[in-house]
Amino acid sequence: MSIVVMKFGGSSVADADKIRACSARAIEARKAGHKVVMVVSAMGDTTDDLVALAKQITSTPSKREYDQLLATGEQVTISLVAMAMEAMGQPAISFTAGQIGMVTDDKHTKARIKRIDVQKVLRELKSGKIVIVAGFQGVTEDGAVTTLGRGGSNVTLVAIAAALKADMCENYTDVDGIFTADPRLVPNARKIDQVSYDEMLELASLGANVLHNRAVEFAKKYNVPIHVRSSLNHSKGTMIVAESEEMERIVVSGAALKKQLARVSLRNVPDRPGMAARIFHTIGAADIVVDDIIQTETTNKLAAVSFTVDMGDITDVKAVCEKLCSQHAGMTVEFKTDLAKVSVVGVGMRVHTGVAQRMFAALAGAGINIHNITTSEIKISCIIDQVQGPIALRLIHDAFDLGKTPGKAKAKKGRK
Amino acid sequence: MSIVVMKFGGSSVADADKIRACSARAIEARKAGHKVVMVVSAMGDTTDDLVALAKQITSTPSKREYDQLLATGEQVTISLVAMAMEAMGQPAISFTAGQIGMVTDDKHTKARIKRIDVQKVLRELKSGKIVIVAGFQGVTEDGAVTTLGRGGSNVTLVAIAAALKADMCENYTDVDGIFTADPRLVPNARKIDQVSYDEMLELASLGANVLHNRAVEFAKKYNVPIHVRSSLNHSKGTMIVAESEEMERIVVSGAALKKQLARVSLRNVPDRPGMAARIFHTIGAADIVVDDIIQTETTNKLAAVSFTVDMGDITDVKAVCEKLCSQHAGMTVEFKTDLAKVSVVGVGMRVHTGVAQRMFAALAGAGINIHNITTSEIKISCIIDQVQGPIALRLIHDAFDLGKTPGKAKAKKGRK
Repeated sequence: MSIVVMKFGGSSVADADKIRACSARAIEARKAGHKVVMVVSAMGDTTDDLVALAKQITSTPSKREYDQLLATGEQVTISLVAMAMEAMGQPAISFTAGQIGMVTDDKHTKARIKRIDVQKVLRELKSGKIVIVAGFQGVTEDGAVTTLGRGGSNVTLVAIAAALKADMCENYTDVDGIFTADPRLVPNARKIDQVSYDEMLELASLGANVLHNRAVEFAKKYNVPIHVRSSLNHSKGTMIVAESEEMERIVVSGAALKKQLARVSLRNVPDRPGMAARIFHTIGAADIVVDDIIQTETTNKLAAVSFTVDMGDITDVKAVCEKLCSQHAGMTVEFKTDLAKVSVVGVGMRVHTGVAQRMFAALAGAGINIHNITTSEIKISCIIDQVQGPIALRLIHDAFDLGKTPGKAKAKKGRK
Repeated sequence: MSIVVMKFGGSSVADADKIRACSARAIEARKAGHKVVMVVSAMGDTTDDLVALAKQITSTPSKREYDQLLATGEQVTISLVAMAMEAMGQPAISFTAGQIGMVTDDKHTKARIKRIDVQKVLRELKSGKIVIVAGFQGVTEDGAVTTLGRGGSNVTLVAIAAALKADMCENYTDVDGIFTADPRLVPNARKIDQVSYDEMLELASLGANVLHNRAVEFAKKYNVPIHVRSSLNHSKGTMIVAESEEMERIVVSGAALKKQLARVSLRNVPDRPGMAARIFHTIGAADIVVDDIIQTETTNKLAAVSFTVDMGDITDVKAVCEKLCSQHAGMTVEFKTDLAKVSVVGVGMRVHTGVAQRMFAALAGAGINIHNITTSEIKISCIIDQVQGPIALRLIHDAFDLGKTPGKAKAKKGRK
């Protein structure tokens, strides 16, 4: 009998009716003959409410206590889901992370799973029960509650599926799967049938908020295929799987837009070993997350360093950079706000050429100025003015024929 | 260094300000040089809200899942209290029942504590932290969450104090202690300085809702003195302690009124062994809690059995009794509603005479009819019409001079 692990997020369990609907979905799988494990998040706004409660007490809660507090959200959901299933005649049992020995390190609020003792889960599955597991949480060796950070319930999903050697690992959402672009911005965006872990990692970091990177990394590490699908219908969604030769036939899998970016340009930076480390250590210490970094040598012994940050961090980053400049004679800093990043992602880029050129041409044809370009093995990104973001996304989506069924994109063999 | 265990109930931790106030109280004790453990309940109406949530799912939740759900209430409080203390500069750490191995049997919703592994608590106390423990909950040997039933947080208080061999066990409430009668009904009711476990047990079951019986029984078993005191001031409250010789000098310690009672009178009950057992087994099986029972032989081979129940159970009890009558020829049943029970309690009754007579005279003097009388070693109760309850309570309170400082009540030596 095969094992299915299915995960439902907070909006899918937001009220009693939705809890019943998810439960029915799991029971359906059980009736079809599978052993079923269900991972759930906290109901709707519960986590936000708990965070607000903590804020009434202190603006700087200890992370241990913060985790102890937040983990109650998922504990509420698992018990209600188990009750709902039992009310429908399906034997069920709920487990917190502590109850099934989901041991993490002690990095509270962003703990990493070390091991899961699956014996208890297997025993209950064997007895015919559906097992409901609290997502997003773990326990330290010492029994303290931890949480797994943003997207933590998906990490739980993948970890349980890996530990149980599950046959299916399903992430239920309110969309039909992963799309070639955000359908709200690109009307002819198309659901992708399958995407590689690496492509998904690039797409997630580029703003396609379906699966958090840590869950995808975990799935890649343990080679767990994830089926991202809708809880509202029975259509096949998107399979996130290990890369295959055949995938390289498709040059570009998807396009993404990330908004609300600002660019910081440091000039006359002393071009000596350790300088970049020093700059980004200082910025990291101020809790500012840096997006892309570009460094070029300008004159002998001097370099230009550019990087992008979230618009929300601009005040903090200004303070840090101005201090840096004051410590190095001649170094200056400039800021440019209201930027966006359009990107195309595809493992096929490794073997096909002309991708960058085609993207740049599409943007140039519409008079869109490119401020910066960054690339990875399977991604090309352009920083442009934010106001042009949605148009740019549609243009490149069309330039690579992403609205059409795959296999039709044309490109020459070779590197970008 | 002495160990103090202090418990704050749901109304004392109902919001952020109240949580800060309780935390300050515990920090005060820590600063005074004590090692401090704090037991807390769920905030205000949290438990009711969780119950309402479960009801949206099913009217018959499994008890295991119900406990898994309800226990989140206390977990929220402990983390917030720890945060509040840390914000005030006091190192603190919170523990759920599972985290300190508070193992109970597996009788969900009314579990009994079997043992507590206090090593973790002692280690944290030694390091100078205040330890905050979730009241009302436990875990089975298998790690399932249990709850301890009504008054469960007080059971936790006493259990922790017993396990730690604490020097002080303090139950903080919004009243100054145990009173000779309910001050809302009897204006000259007086705070009692000390009361024995047995007296407290009688008073609690008679409607003085300060401490639930199970906590008092637990305290009696392990001889843990409980200090019931106000969280709003620093006055000495009431000590609940083991009975001492000196206590017998006081004939009556307190008077109580229990309202909303109904009396069931079964007549022509076959007077043979096992008949009472059969009747009360049937009633118990219907989840009806019986208060007092009186049985008298009326004629040869026939008896009259009377008992009182909560008014809320009258519909259920009617159905059960009418069925019983239909099974035994000649047996009839009568019901009388809107009754109340006034009682006096005192260990001194064991050695003093005239107590019953003085109580009956006080009621008779005001023309109050007594429907039933029941007594225990240290208690006399009279069932009267509910409308006369408050007057009757004031009358007997005065008859035993309870409003005056103790030692002044006069009675002859001997039994009632």
